[in-house]
Parts: sequence; structure tokens; C-alpha cells
Amino acid sequence: MGERLIVIGGVAAGMSAAAKARRVNKDLDIVVYEKSGYVSYGSCGFPYFIKGEIPRIDDLIVRTPEQFAKQGIEAHVHHEVLSIDTVVRSVRVRNVETGEEFTDQWDRLILTTGGVAARPPIPGLDLAGIFTLRTPEDALAVRAWIEERRPKRGVIVGAGYIGLEMAEALAANGIKVTVVEMLPQVMPNMDPDMAQLVQEELLRQGVELYLEHPVQAFEGKERVEQVLAGDAAFPADIVIFSVGVKPNVTLAKEAGIALGPTGAVAVDDHQRTNVPQVWAAGDVAEAHHLVTGKPAYIPLGTTANKQGRVAGTNAAGGDAVFAGIVGTAVAKVFDLQVARTGLSLRQAREEGFDVASVNIKASSRAHYMPGHKPIHVKLIFEKGTHRLLGAQMVGAEGVAKRIDVLAAALHAGWTTYDLAKLDLSYAPPFAPVWDPILIAANVANK
Amino acid sequence: MGERLIVIGGVAAGMSAAAKARRVNKDLDIVVYEKSGYVSYGSCGFPYFIKGEIPRIDDLIVRTPEQFAKQGIEAHVHHEVLSIDTVVRSVRVRNVETGEEFTDQWDRLILTTGGVAARPPIPGLDLAGIFTLRTPEDALAVRAWIEERRPKRGVIVGAGYIGLEMAEALAANGIKVTVVEMLPQVMPNMDPDMAQLVQEELLRQGVELYLEHPVQAFEGKERVEQVLAGDAAFPADIVIFSVGVKPNVTLAKEAGIALGPTGAVAVDDHQRTNVPQVWAAGDVAEAHHLVTGKPAYIPLGTTANKQGRVAGTNAAGGDAVFAGIVGTAVAKVFDLQVARTGLSLRQAREEGFDVASVNIKASSRAHYMPGHKPIHVKLIFEKGTHRLLGAQMVGAEGVAKRIDVLAAALHAGWTTYDLAKLDLSYAPPFAPVWDPILIAANVANK
Repeated sequence: MGERLIVIGGVAAGMSAAAKARRVNKDLDIVVYEKSGYVSYGSCGFPYFIKGEIPRIDDLIVRTPEQFAKQGIEAHVHHEVLSIDTVVRSVRVRNVETGEEFTDQWDRLILTTGGVAARPPIPGLDLAGIFTLRTPEDALAVRAWIEERRPKRGVIVGAGYIGLEMAEALAANGIKVTVVEMLPQVMPNMDPDMAQLVQEELLRQGVELYLEHPVQAFEGKERVEQVLAGDAAFPADIVIFSVGVKPNVTLAKEAGIALGPTGAVAVDDHQRTNVPQVWAAGDVAEAHHLVTGKPAYIPLGTTANKQGRVAGTNAAGGDAVFAGIVGTAVAKVFDLQVARTGLSLRQAREEGFDVASVNIKASSRAHYMPGHKPIHVKLIFEKGTHRLLGAQMVGAEGVAKRIDVLAAALHAGWTTYDLAKLDLSYAPPFAPVWDPILIAANVANK
Repeated sequence: MGERLIVIGGVAAGMSAAAKARRVNKDLDIVVYEKSGYVSYGSCGFPYFIKGEIPRIDDLIVRTPEQFAKQGIEAHVHHEVLSIDTVVRSVRVRNVETGEEFTDQWDRLILTTGGVAARPPIPGLDLAGIFTLRTPEDALAVRAWIEERRPKRGVIVGAGYIGLEMAEALAANGIKVTVVEMLPQVMPNMDPDMAQLVQEELLRQGVELYLEHPVQAFEGKERVEQVLAGDAAFPADIVIFSVGVKPNVTLAKEAGIALGPTGAVAVDDHQRTNVPQVWAAGDVAEAHHLVTGKPAYIPLGTTANKQGRVAGTNAAGGDAVFAGIVGTAVAKVFDLQVARTGLSLRQAREEGFDVASVNIKASSRAHYMPGHKPIHVKLIFEKGTHRLLGAQMVGAEGVAKRIDVLAAALHAGWTTYDLAKLDLSYAPPFAPVWDPILIAANVANK
């Protein structure tokens, strides 16, 4: 009989790990416990489901438990792991539908419990009509609330990626949207000058934006009726609460699995935790940041999938390494593409770099082509060496994949001089003859 | 009095060189002689002018001679350089409007005579209604022919980038288009499997395509009436002849400026020719190919601009180096984006590499997003080492700038293993969680 691998959590990292483990090792028993009613779903699609662009929540499911069963992977939904015993190597599991509890033994364990929405102790946060967005059940609840209650006024608390994607989703449902944010800018991992472009787009789209408005309370009788923030009151028939994601480390902490400096589970480049035969991956874990050389907590689906494969390979007896991240991310905010990679100016300063930056405005196509749009490129680099530390880009087209060239540059450890040498593609419908990246590099090199 | 820099040819490389030389050296006399009636134009825009997307040819002009004059650059249009004397350092020039000839002295010379359309000795090639496309005058002539003659049937000879862009331009003018090509595929610098996708698009768009149909003759009385190719006759009211570009090296050869193995002017990494104080740049010159380590002739506007700046800097007494090319190019062919970088499979084999390749079909967006389109990615790499040698991409969206990540990978000298590590951007509207590049790399690494 083969050894038994238990995977706790069946979303991106967990199901990538299980599937990869199966391919690497045919003899392993592989069991996944997932608390929600779904495995293997694309949670980044929730705003588009709520917006109405994606008709059914099932469209976001990559594979069902039945499909995993055919691969020889036992995936149990509605099963919450209550505790981990790393000495006798067992987990205590509850079937949340029946209430039944049982103990299961493992030889190898992969922890992919993901992230949870941050929920600071704000009065009224439990009122009906206030939603966070982590699981398909959350997305279905928002969609049902919209269809049944026809809310007219929506308040988004928190202007990060999810908050702004949800602003678009609610507005598309005819809801008048107000965004309230504690900080003096939207998208805190962008620099203020680039965030300003996003703020202008929100206003153009009719979204009301209140910066430096920390939420004090939610009020209402049976359901939320208004949001108190920054000493103002905002009426609301629906609230999306999206102030951040924290690693879901409760199980890990109780089991003695070590956390790192970010508060997420510490892992090495094989996704090993401090406990033998226990790996971790995805939004519960840290990742090695290639620009700082330190562990970082940047929970994203891309990293979760890659780390999951590495954890699955190693837990199955193979040998794989996760190379690390550079913090690349992109979001659609109404008609803008907003992208970043590496360190922001503020992050670079906090890391102790002697930093310079350039911020240029160029065109997404040749200047004479109809439909060309402005594209803003910011490069953050080290004074003296000109080593690239980060980049940000905002524009209506040509941003999402152009940022990847700068992500590659960070992987390569390039300077802005190296960037200026790149033989990048050109045709009038797709770029100016000097690509915006080359323009920015040339300005940095002056 | 300052020394005198003469630049022969005033398009991309020439005007980049002149402008850069002026910035580097305020004392230099800078004179540009350009045979056509325009300087500093974007010739890649001609198909879009002919298509009707760009209203005026002047929209393609970056700067006029008057604007250059304000920078202290004397740019003479309608001035053809007839010969170069590298001993007494002079050029013989003819004003093609007045017929006047004169001699001008130089201390430093930059040769940017560009490329010329290949014109093999085919009977009837000089008939009215047959056009090549290199200068604004050419583009204006095609546009005038379309407006005055209202051609119904057009034949494109040669299925390279320009030929296929012109197929789209003519079709947009209501012309029934037939493309005849000598080779068994369109776009000879793409591999046949990728070219096949372009061929299918041409057929979908109602373009008739005849491969392996070398042109034998053009026939007609006062103007072209039919094209004989591959023993078939194709009626034509207009013909675009686009079988390739050759370096315009007549002046260089006569002056004893050495050509390289490709037949273009040989230059070092400072754009120096074999003659002291003579530099060359752009479509007349070779470029160092970073994948093969050899000189290559790949005439493109991006390279012309970069080489021009390097030549201008050095001719003005500065010190700049051109890093080389990897052969990146993109074209719009009707609703497809077609891109390539590095070596094709055939080129890689010809260079003696032991080659492998993968060709995957992925999606331009998350699978559940409306509007997602197939995107085909081909990676060409060395067996054993897995060193990336080239890449090709075809799809309706997300191709043009995604190829640049692979261009960057070639600059970095990466393997397909390195590629698989990249932290690329993801959001459902812009990419699947596994970017098509990562999917291709993962398949290559299996």
C-alpha cells in the first residue's frame, strides 16, 4: 500500500499540488479536504461573475471532485480540518454538512489553507449586506443580494485590487458606487503618482472616492444602511469589505508549524515547512522575493499555482524548486489596465535602497494610428548602479503584458542600461517605434 | 568653425543620427541629403495610410526640415547623393528638382541610404499600376491609383509582412485581393505550422492565396491587366510588388565601403564602417545577431532608430555601442497578431543547432472570460541545454507585446527552464493564471 498524502485546502495551490503529486507518484494515496463546497476554482473571476459577464459560478470551476476522482485524487468538499497533529501525523476533520468528525492519518501533508479576508473589529461588520469575497459561496451571496434586493447605493471599503474590481462590478449592475479608503491613495502597492491616474479614472466613471476615510462603524437595523467613515456617513444598500488578505495560519500555529517574519508560513525553496514531511504553498505561505532577497507575503493565484506544483512534486518524492517572485500584478479598473512589478518607490526606500525613478507618458500605438491611448511607465531604479528595482504602468491598452518585460528584467537583475538595449517588437497598431519601455529607459539613462 | 557631418539619407536612421549628433555636439555642422521629398517619416505606416485609417501622408512625418532647421540641422529633400569620395572626403550631390549638381565636403559621414525594394528582372514589371512601397511618394501613388482608377481586383506579389499588410489595406478599399507567393508558405521567417494559421486567416477574410506560384510576367497595354504566376493568369487592376528589401549599397560599393557576408554594409558595434570617419546605420547596414553571434540583415525601423542614435553619438565625438538584435518583429494581418523573435526552426537548423520545439494553443484570457481568443505559442530551443533560440506567436489578442518577454529571454540567454520561473502578470481579462508563455515552457520542460 502506498503512503498517504493529505492536502488541506483545495483551491489553486492545493489542487495544483494534488494533481502534480499524482503525476509524479502513482502509488501515493492522495486526499484533499476543502472547507467550502467547491474545489479548484478561479477566485480572481468572482468580480466578473458578480458583474454579470460570467453567467454561472460553475464556469469558474477548473475541475470538479468527480474529475479529480478519475485521476485517483479523493477531494472532499465541505470538510474542515480542525487540527493537525505533527507527532502521530494525523488530522482531525469535520464534515460541515453532517457534523460528523473523524481522524485521518498522513505520511505527508501539504498545507494550502489560503488567505482570509482581514476583518478588524469594526462595530456592525456582521450586519447583513456586508460581504467579503474569498469563496464561491461569498460570490454567490453577493450576486443573490444584488438580484433580490436591487441595491441602489454600494460602498466599497478598501481600494485595493479587489475593491476596485468590485467597484466596476457593482457599477455594471446599475449601483451608484462610493469607495472609502483609509490611506491617502488607492492601490497602496502603486506609487501615488500612478495611483492618481487610477483615481482620475474612477471619477470619470462616476465612482465617488473618499481617501483618508477610515471606517468607524456600519449601521442599520436588519441590514446595513450606512457606513460611518472619516466622520462622514455614506448610505449603503450593499457593502463590499475588502481591506486586505491575511494568511489563514490558525491551523499551522496550533500545530507548531513555524511562521516567518511576514506572519505567513515560512517555507524554503522546496516549499518545506519546519516540520518534516509538511509542505505549504499558496496564500498561506511566504515567497522568496527576488528583488529584496527576503521573504514576502504577496498572495496571488499565479504564485499559488507555481508553489502548489513544487510542493506536490516534492511531497510525492520528486525534486522541484520554487524560484521566487518579483511581485508582478495587473488589474483592470474600468477602462484602465494597472500593472506593477518589483518594488514601489516607497518599498524600495524602506528596503534601504538609494532610489531614483522616471515617469514617462508615451503612446500605446504609433502616434499617427487612430485609437492610440496614453500609456504611463514608471521605472524605479538604484542610483549609481541603475539596477532596476521595480516598474509600474497604467494605460487603456498595451499594459497587461508589457509589464511582463519588466518582470523578466527583474528576474535577470538588469539595469536600465540593459533595458534600453532590448530588441522589442514594433508595428504601428501595437506600439510606437520606440516602445514606451525603451523611452522610459532612455530617460532614466540620460 | 566646427567640423562638418554629412548624413546621406534622412529617414529613421539618418534623422535619428542627425538629431543625436546635434545633442552630443553643439559645434558640428550637420547636413542631411535625402533623395525623396520627405524626411523623418514612419514608413511602417504606409499600409495604414493606403487603407484609409490615416487621413494624410503628413501625419506620418515626425519632423519637417523646418523643424530640424530650428535644431541647427540642415536637411535637404530632393537631394540625391551621386557619389562619395573617401579620400578627399566629399560627396557629389544633385538637386533632383533643379538638376543642379555640386560637391560638398565632410569631415565625418553617416551612411543611411536605407533599403530598396527587390526588383528581379520580370517582364512587364515597369507597367503602370504596379507599385513597390518604400517612400511617401510610393504610398501617395498607390492611394491616388486607388482613388482615381477604383481598381476592383488587386494582386499582391510576395507574402511577407508588407505584402500581407497591403492585402488588408486593399481589401479595406473594397478590392478583391489575390496573394501570389513563390514559396510554399506565407511569411518565410515564421515556421510553416505558424504560417498556416496566418494562411487560414487570409482565407477567412476572403483573400485568395496561391502558394508556390512564382511570378513569370506582368501583362497589359497601357497599364497592368494581368499577372502570370505559376502557369496561371490573375486579372489585376493594381499590383503591389513586395518580394523583399535589399540594402541600398550602390554608393557604398562604389566608394570602397566594405560590405559584410549578408551583402549589407559591414559595421562594428560602434556602427563604424571600414573607412575612417564613416559610419553606417539602418536598412543599409548589418546588425549583430545575439542568438547566432553573426552579422544579420533584418531591416526594421526599430533597429534603424537605435543604430542611428549610436552612429550619431559616435560621429559627434561621443561613445555609444549598439548591443545587437534578436530579430523581433510583429505584424497585424487582418484580425491576427503575428509575432516572432530569434531564430525560426529552419534558421536554427541552418545555424547548426540541435533543435527541439513545442507548439501550444492556449487562451488569451482566463477560460471563463467572454471574448477570450486562442493564442498559439511556439518555442524553439536547443536539445540538451534547453537554451531558447526563438519563439513565434499568433493570435487575435495579447501577442504583440507578449513576444517581447521572449525577446528579453533571448537577450538574457535563458533556457526554457528559466522561462518557466517567470513571475508574469495575471488578471482574468488579460491572461490565464498560467500565462501561455509558461504553459509552453512547462511543456518544453517535460
